[in-house]
Amino acid sequence: MSETRPDVGAQAIELHQRLKGIIEIRLKTPIDSMSDLSLVYTPGVGAVSRVIADHPEQADQLTWRKNAVAVVSDGSAVLGLGNIGPAGALPVMEGKCAIFKRFADLDAVPIVLATQDVEQIIATVKAIAPSFGAIQLEDISGPRCFTIERRLQEELDIPVMHDDQHGTAVVALAALINALKVVGKSFEEVNVVLSGAGAAGIGVARLLVKRGIKNLIAVDRTGAIWDGREGLNEEKKLLASFTNKEKRTGLLADVAQGADILIGVSSAGIFTTDIVKSLAPHSIIIAMANPVPEILPDEAKAAGVAVMATGRSDFPNQVNNALCYPGLFRGMLDHGVKKVTDEIKFRAAEAIAAMVPHPTPEKIIPNMFDPGLVERVAASVIE
Amino acid sequence: MSETRPDVGAQAIELHQRLKGIIEIRLKTPIDSMSDLSLVYTPGVGAVSRVIADHPEQADQLTWRKNAVAVVSDGSAVLGLGNIGPAGALPVMEGKCAIFKRFADLDAVPIVLATQDVEQIIATVKAIAPSFGAIQLEDISGPRCFTIERRLQEELDIPVMHDDQHGTAVVALAALINALKVVGKSFEEVNVVLSGAGAAGIGVARLLVKRGIKNLIAVDRTGAIWDGREGLNEEKKLLASFTNKEKRTGLLADVAQGADILIGVSSAGIFTTDIVKSLAPHSIIIAMANPVPEILPDEAKAAGVAVMATGRSDFPNQVNNALCYPGLFRGMLDHGVKKVTDEIKFRAAEAIAAMVPHPTPEKIIPNMFDPGLVERVAASVIE
Repeated sequence: MSETRPDVGAQAIELHQRLKGIIEIRLKTPIDSMSDLSLVYTPGVGAVSRVIADHPEQADQLTWRKNAVAVVSDGSAVLGLGNIGPAGALPVMEGKCAIFKRFADLDAVPIVLATQDVEQIIATVKAIAPSFGAIQLEDISGPRCFTIERRLQEELDIPVMHDDQHGTAVVALAALINALKVVGKSFEEVNVVLSGAGAAGIGVARLLVKRGIKNLIAVDRTGAIWDGREGLNEEKKLLASFTNKEKRTGLLADVAQGADILIGVSSAGIFTTDIVKSLAPHSIIIAMANPVPEILPDEAKAAGVAVMATGRSDFPNQVNNALCYPGLFRGMLDHGVKKVTDEIKFRAAEAIAAMVPHPTPEKIIPNMFDPGLVERVAASVIE
Repeated sequence: MSETRPDVGAQAIELHQRLKGIIEIRLKTPIDSMSDLSLVYTPGVGAVSRVIADHPEQADQLTWRKNAVAVVSDGSAVLGLGNIGPAGALPVMEGKCAIFKRFADLDAVPIVLATQDVEQIIATVKAIAPSFGAIQLEDISGPRCFTIERRLQEELDIPVMHDDQHGTAVVALAALINALKVVGKSFEEVNVVLSGAGAAGIGVARLLVKRGIKNLIAVDRTGAIWDGREGLNEEKKLLASFTNKEKRTGLLADVAQGADILIGVSSAGIFTTDIVKSLAPHSIIIAMANPVPEILPDEAKAAGVAVMATGRSDFPNQVNNALCYPGLFRGMLDHGVKKVTDEIKFRAAEAIAAMVPHPTPEKIIPNMFDPGLVERVAASVIE
């Protein structure tokens, strides 16, 4: 099992250490004189505050708020590293903020939390919400993330999205749309096995089934999830209610036999060569564990898979949330959309898939530098 | 009574509207290729997170945290505008953040709160604290601000400073050091009347008395504050315990007769011409209400004051917190100082005063563009 390539990791550490992080604050207007100062600070700013005091919605026009996104994590489910806490999560959130700026010109601020208590997280995000135009929740473990997102969506009047659920689901759906074209199979006929029933897994399962996948079995550490299995939490019970209709049991290796598609949002290396060899012909693997996928592309291809994707930027077919969230937030903020519906997610997935009009095994998904990606995803929000 | 000059206010509104706020996020490293992306995002960032997961203090070296300051307000006491709420406070906090960056290269983020409850504010700041190297509290009304600052200082291991109390006090002290030189009077002999017993007033009174002022009477809306006056809150009781030893009573106009120094941290226009005419010869006025001071400089001088200062950037002698906080936070963060002591405040005031070696009535205090100001204040933290 190969780890993060040592050179990439070492280079990343060197870069972060040299720059002391990768984002900073910048002034949009120079402050080079007392006259400049009297506009951005007292007395001029008093006039700006007075306008907003009388018309609070004017803060969207007169401050950075409408373009500002809080990227919030409690550090409980960071990449594939697990519950490493807020400090460990901070570089990942900075990276997300850098991507927000680079690709969608949004001013995102990393906010990592000293608490993993559901009510405290909700209270904290609500308390800081007047500072931001939108909230992106990141790397918060299930099932807490479901409650936190639902409550914040209900109780705030700005967009709140848990990226691990919805960003992942949108991009996985986009990849699948094109991968199915490559292998010539349809949504309705394929058997999908999904490894991982955390936030991302549940988000992916919900969206794929709503989009027409009829046979999907989700698998957690204990094995296949079925309606009636003992000890399921509320979210997994819900998952069982619309997946695995035949109530199949067994481990991943059992239920994966003969499947057309393996999707991984679980942990490094668990798609073994034997499992891949047992798949149906013309199989598809989307292995999104980060930083180390469920199987590396070379191994998967040697074992006969037809289309292979990972979440990594250093392999072809990067199925990564970052293809979705910059454009999605740009679109929601530009168009005053307050909630991410399933229809918005379907349109975003179609917009991403449409960036690759002639998909091939090595190119089922655009990369983040493809011109027009963010604009098309942003426009899809209200199409 | 003149308001904020209409042209300055209108220009400020135009600027904030055109730019949609005055700060933004910027990348410190380009993201122009998949290879760049693999360093700031997966998989490279996973190695950075893993280092911090094992050694959390490394977040100071590998993220922006050690250079990041949260500028936090609940909007309860914004400039002289009062309790205008979080949205109204946001442009002021953006302005403070712009000043942090421009003068001290610190990355400050405006955080305005949806709550004015003491416990909720404390809980919120503690929850977001792992994201920042220091916390600046701004424009939070008394007496809540005292509890909030004290508790956060006790419960967090990063610097927390309520600028309205301490920044104001440091800069007022610096101004007074030089103003007394101009008029040839000493700290020990002068009579000071302080208008305003909110956060700033209490901060100023505490620091001046500790620095050697023997006769100081604080005045609130009801009149002189004295030990035994009915209805004083806890903070004003404390203030009464070390000021106004003769227990004088009466309104501002009564106790100001014959005083050497009037300091205002109260509200627009309350230092009338009659009050100023009743002062001792060679009097000093530091009128810091914002955006409109307790008296405008022209009026005060016509009424015979010798040295006149305001909090405004468009008059001479701007006694403004911004002379202090950028350097003070730079120094605390650079030198790992976790708490602002009185000794640090005295040294900062001396450093600011020393920037003007030959004070005159029109120049008792440096301006923010004087070279070396931030560096000297920063160095004074550990001198």
